Amino acid sequence: MKVAKKITTVRKAVDSAKRRGQRVGFVPTMGYLHEGHLSLIRQARKYNDFVVVSIFVNPIQFGPREDYRRYPRDLRRDLKLCKEAGVDLVFAPSVEEMYPQPFLTYVEVKELDKHLCGASRPGHFRGVCTVVAKLFNIVMPDVAYFGQKDVQQARIIEQMVADLNFPIRIRIMPIVREPDGLAMSSRNVYLSEEERRKAPIIYQSLLKGKRELLAGRQVGRVLKELARDVEMAGGKVDYVELVRWEDMAPVRKLAPGERYVLAMAVWFGRARLIDNVVFRAGERG
Amino acid sequence: MKVAKKITTVRKAVDSAKRRGQRVGFVPTMGYLHEGHLSLIRQARKYNDFVVVSIFVNPIQFGPREDYRRYPRDLRRDLKLCKEAGVDLVFAPSVEEMYPQPFLTYVEVKELDKHLCGASRPGHFRGVCTVVAKLFNIVMPDVAYFGQKDVQQARIIEQMVADLNFPIRIRIMPIVREPDGLAMSSRNVYLSEEERRKAPIIYQSLLKGKRELLAGRQVGRVLKELARDVEMAGGKVDYVELVRWEDMAPVRKLAPGERYVLAMAVWFGRARLIDNVVFRAGERG
Repeated sequence: MKVAKKITTVRKAVDSAKRRGQRVGFVPTMGYLHEGHLSLIRQARKYNDFVVVSIFVNPIQFGPREDYRRYPRDLRRDLKLCKEAGVDLVFAPSVEEMYPQPFLTYVEVKELDKHLCGASRPGHFRGVCTVVAKLFNIVMPDVAYFGQKDVQQARIIEQMVADLNFPIRIRIMPIVREPDGLAMSSRNVYLSEEERRKAPIIYQSLLKGKRELLAGRQVGRVLKELARDVEMAGGKVDYVELVRWEDMAPVRKLAPGERYVLAMAVWFGRARLIDNVVFRAGERG
Repeated sequence: MKVAKKITTVRKAVDSAKRRGQRVGFVPTMGYLHEGHLSLIRQARKYNDFVVVSIFVNPIQFGPREDYRRYPRDLRRDLKLCKEAGVDLVFAPSVEEMYPQPFLTYVEVKELDKHLCGASRPGHFRGVCTVVAKLFNIVMPDVAYFGQKDVQQARIIEQMVADLNFPIRIRIMPIVREPDGLAMSSRNVYLSEEERRKAPIIYQSLLKGKRELLAGRQVGRVLKELARDVEMAGGKVDYVELVRWEDMAPVRKLAPGERYVLAMAVWFGRARLIDNVVFRAGERG
């Protein structure tokens, strides 16, 4: 496994893989890898000849009061996991390599960032799109893998790729969970023992919400109930929303056949956790 | 020469050129080709194996009161000129092919769009960057050619390519002029006979301005004088500015060795014409 700090090293390695006729799969990450990332890497390994993983905590997607500085990092462990998973190339650039000054260009997807995390993290998705566009241009993969846990991010990237004609296929893979249902996240490390014990309420309430929505209960009431359940368990709800997959806009009523996301962001202590379930109306109703 | 209306056709043609080991040169245009465009195409022809020209009047770079609808178009003539110039592939898509709905993604270069045309055409460079990013992802050229007449556009594209790591080299080629000095422009066709006779004052005054700036005359005074000269000839000055090449920001004083752009936008009748001269301070002073 090769580890590249420089953009030119990545370009050379990928170029020569492509010249050998190899198909390139790419998993962009912020490191501190967990089973969620590894499921993406395994998927990339399975369907591609040359697998690239990037590890870069992207400063421009964090707000001024967010956790950029304390975001967990452990490159040595990440490299070990990548190697074990059969990754061919890890790209782990410095901030200076990615953002030489002056840096002035931003990619933005309108509308889709209005709700969910976009509402509480202004500028976040602009930072995500910009770094992903850069990484796509650096790695030039055939396929890129994203996790459904960051569902709004995945939807936005999908739109960006379509709108800007990136010659890349986007694969969105299912959320990987702990045995008790908590979605895997690098930020779970922020949880105290007690918070960790209580955090699975997020997924439990999402499942309950989905059931009740499909049973025809009123959207507003279901959302309020979910928020109450989570707050009772000690979480502080940032948002709980039902949005259409297509435009990530909140809805008050299900339309048959339409695809929805029931999503939540909850603070447990200093950890802001997100999770979601995706379903189609009329799926079981 | 192949003419493609569809993105997939372009991808296939360029892919197979690349597989033959050919180097791809690209000239993006809005059509109604003149000697300026042709000089770019000839340069592309000289240094590349496979030359792609795009012809697309990009709606999203025009303001609501601008000349999108009446912008001159003559595809048949353009194709003839491309063929004569040895172009391999012309990409002439429809608006629907380039902007299927919903279209939500925009690329923006901050700061560099604050002055010159950016100040009088809000959203213009966002539209330019977005379409150029799309075209780059569709054509995937090794080199792309831009004219110095649209100097702010060229500088902004250069920055976008650096910031987003497009694996493309940008070449900025000199302005091509009519025998009397008027910069070639598709919009010259809007000029009445009398306006056409007077329009060369733009370049004459830019040359005079450059001389006087290099001779050490005060920037503010020189700019005022140029504006007066042009207005005397019947032009209506939109802006006349001296900016640094690097950050496209106005300066009031030259610093030795620094690169500058003296630029002007002038209305003659219903034609908004732009022109500029680029020079280095201390070049002759």
